[in-house]
Amino acid sequence: MTAFPHKHLLGIEDLDAEQIGAILDTAEGLREVLDRPLKKVPTLRGRTVVNLFFESSTRTRTSFEMAEKILSADSLSISASTSSVTKGETLIDTAHNIEAMSPDVIVIRHPSAGAPHLLARHCRASIVNAGDGTHEHPTQALLDALTLRQHKGQLEGLKVAIVGDILHSRVARSNAWLLTKMGAEVVLCGPPTLIPPGVEQLAPFEPRLGTAIDGADAIMMLRVQRERMSGGYFPSAREYHAHWGLTLKRMEAARDDVLIMHPGPMNRGVEIASEVADGPFSVILEQVTNGVAVRMAVLYLLVGPGEVSA
Amino acid sequence: MTAFPHKHLLGIEDLDAEQIGAILDTAEGLREVLDRPLKKVPTLRGRTVVNLFFESSTRTRTSFEMAEKILSADSLSISASTSSVTKGETLIDTAHNIEAMSPDVIVIRHPSAGAPHLLARHCRASIVNAGDGTHEHPTQALLDALTLRQHKGQLEGLKVAIVGDILHSRVARSNAWLLTKMGAEVVLCGPPTLIPPGVEQLAPFEPRLGTAIDGADAIMMLRVQRERMSGGYFPSAREYHAHWGLTLKRMEAARDDVLIMHPGPMNRGVEIASEVADGPFSVILEQVTNGVAVRMAVLYLLVGPGEVSA
Amino acid sequence: MTAFPHKHLLGIEDLDAEQIGAILDTAEGLREVLDRPLKKVPTLRGRTVVNLFFESSTRTRTSFEMAEKILSADSLSISASTSSVTKGETLIDTAHNIEAMSPDVIVIRHPSAGAPHLLARHCRASIVNAGDGTHEHPTQALLDALTLRQHKGQLEGLKVAIVGDILHSRVARSNAWLLTKMGAEVVLCGPPTLIPPGVEQLAPFEPRLGTAIDGADAIMMLRVQRERMSGGYFPSAREYHAHWGLTLKRMEAARDDVLIMHPGPMNRGVEIASEVADGPFSVILEQVTNGVAVRMAVLYLLVGPGEVSA
Repeated sequence: MTAFPHKHLLGIEDLDAEQIGAILDTAEGLREVLDRPLKKVPTLRGRTVVNLFFESSTRTRTSFEMAEKILSADSLSISASTSSVTKGETLIDTAHNIEAMSPDVIVIRHPSAGAPHLLARHCRASIVNAGDGTHEHPTQALLDALTLRQHKGQLEGLKVAIVGDILHSRVARSNAWLLTKMGAEVVLCGPPTLIPPGVEQLAPFEPRLGTAIDGADAIMMLRVQRERMSGGYFPSAREYHAHWGLTLKRMEAARDDVLIMHPGPMNRGVEIASEVADGPFSVILEQVTNGVAVRMAVLYLLVGPGEVSA
Repeated sequence: MTAFPHKHLLGIEDLDAEQIGAILDTAEGLREVLDRPLKKVPTLRGRTVVNLFFESSTRTRTSFEMAEKILSADSLSISASTSSVTKGETLIDTAHNIEAMSPDVIVIRHPSAGAPHLLARHCRASIVNAGDGTHEHPTQALLDALTLRQHKGQLEGLKVAIVGDILHSRVARSNAWLLTKMGAEVVLCGPPTLIPPGVEQLAPFEPRLGTAIDGADAIMMLRVQRERMSGGYFPSAREYHAHWGLTLKRMEAARDDVLIMHPGPMNRGVEIASEVADGPFSVILEQVTNGVAVRMAVLYLLVGPGEVSA
Repeated sequence: MTAFPHKHLLGIEDLDAEQIGAILDTAEGLREVLDRPLKKVPTLRGRTVVNLFFESSTRTRTSFEMAEKILSADSLSISASTSSVTKGETLIDTAHNIEAMSPDVIVIRHPSAGAPHLLARHCRASIVNAGDGTHEHPTQALLDALTLRQHKGQLEGLKVAIVGDILHSRVARSNAWLLTKMGAEVVLCGPPTLIPPGVEQLAPFEPRLGTAIDGADAIMMLRVQRERMSGGYFPSAREYHAHWGLTLKRMEAARDDVLIMHPGPMNRGVEIASEVADGPFSVILEQVTNGVAVRMAVLYLLVGPGEVSA
């Protein structure tokens, strides 16, 4: 095992192709633990992981907790609604206080971009970014990459269309960075109101769905935040679906073996038709399973046995 | 140990007397673990149980969590308030996503009747119904049966009165089915506004409390949902108590060794007087202890060592 | 190890100097576990601790959970918002029900003074008071004492100023009792509206901040509850800071090696200036670390191996 040179996982932007490959290889190796009747390895026994969630998230939090328990770590979860945040404490004070209880890892989800980086500057613990504002969601991009690699053998040379609310999506951002670093071709697509200015710096933008997915090996549909509707970004769910929703008919432009991906939770009938979500090309549930494997890999590489200096 | 032939515990309705007996015998055997100074057995080590609660419940959730920890399972709890449900995801998508993380058991409480059955059709994991709408609450009926059997030796031939809001009670339904299958005589009793049409198909109905408990071996008092009052089902807590509340005086019609039971949480002074709840015939707290034992038994029978196929 | 003669930890008031010393010595011994790369000892394996929090508290709850996990206890947490309390159950019924599930320890935080004592009278489990109303918060006082002792060698003869909202502070009360028992000199100081009548029975009161901290070995700043402002206890945060906030300038009256303490969460710029909170005399984060050690010690002394009678 090559030593992983980072203390934290703050974002995809900090990683090079070799490091991304190392995480994916480790995840591939750990993934088989999930298929065992007894899903338990002693790898992180005696290690403590605090899951600090300032935004609610069943999926990501549960996935991290599952990874932590399978690795035999001690796992504590703190959600913002019950935390001192509501008592007016600053994020740094909250972090210092958790830190003072000697956890090995703090997994943080926060509505502000850069919150994990702030923690990393103030804490001795390893910090894992579980989503920071509209900035990054690195473990999501890694689990997406693992899923792509399992089906396509490699990431290099793939064409991947990412479709939807690019403006607010940390998933799009982390994926665009990761895929580009790994030699895949990324096309971003979505309603003009939901595309950030300067989008081309992230990846090429194509306004027409048909063109964006033409010849695509994979299509990643982003979740529509229903609250965007009241924000005037698009008129209605029906309207969104008519223009940007992925249907079987629209998929015809993609490759015959195209993979359909979605980070969840899905709005069926809005960004994705049920016939697509549940169809033979969908790997949406494999993404979820790979999420546990990727999080196991990240924890292992950051604070696993090879990293202990007693 | 006879192999338990079911993959799920969805309700009492699906079980026959022999299977019910097997669960009770197993619970009886596991119950002594609770009396040990060190309450820990490695039986479910490496097994993962997800507790998915769409309704809040201290008692039932804590009881399941306790059972899971004593059996050394990995235990994760998800409550609706923090879950993706609030993000508009369907129950099936939520279930598929949890399932994709490879849990062995999903314990579900849900306000809709049939929710656990829906999960059972879509999941590879074993599903345990922890209460579905007004339909069933099988582990409650099993713990009640265990308590009855401990005191009376057997269930066959016992007369059990179930008193209160039969209309909305999954506890009444599961108990009526279980007790009838085991050869006990059940009498249902309660305010006419809180009795379902066709109640006789469940068990005989007797409108007068005095007659219902006449000669009873056990009286199960149901919790009054205070929100029913505003629904016009009965005029006031005082009124309810005057007609349907169990007092020492009213108990005189029952057998001298009658057992007083309540699934909790109690409304003292409404459905039950404190003198009864705290009196010598009350086995209400034994029910709670037996709840942990029954849940240990169910988990053991569904995914215990004998059930592992590697 | 001297056997600890108490079954519960309800408050500092019940302890004598020797018993306090025993807890601190035990905490000192266990503290090094927190510095190990693998923070895990099997001491409480098979023991179950229920954390029953009727008030939200990230800090104290997380600290107890951390202590429980490091000691390998099974740890369950129940918060009031999801508990039966909202269903109208009495505290005693809630306690009886938790008790019936056979936990070894119940850690309780409750807004009413005396709630832990009520539990102790009704439960076989050991009860640990994690804060009861404005009454006591014994583990806070113990962690403060541990921090003082580590820096000053002993508690006897120290002068400690406790500054702020004495009226509503269980921290002040527990600390005043503990420090007095251990031979330290305590001075209470704060706005006259936030001083209880008969304060002198607790410890000497000094209205002027400068005089209170004159020659002090340690200054404990209490958290200002922002809701007190609307209660008319003081006009504004700015006003409070002007009179009672600890600044570098005000610290000059204290000893050169004065320790600055705060139970958290801090209101920076209100009761304490950031320059003080983050300055070289602050031991605020050491208090947090010692909190885990003290809670480990308390659990160990109450239900550790020496206490098991099989």
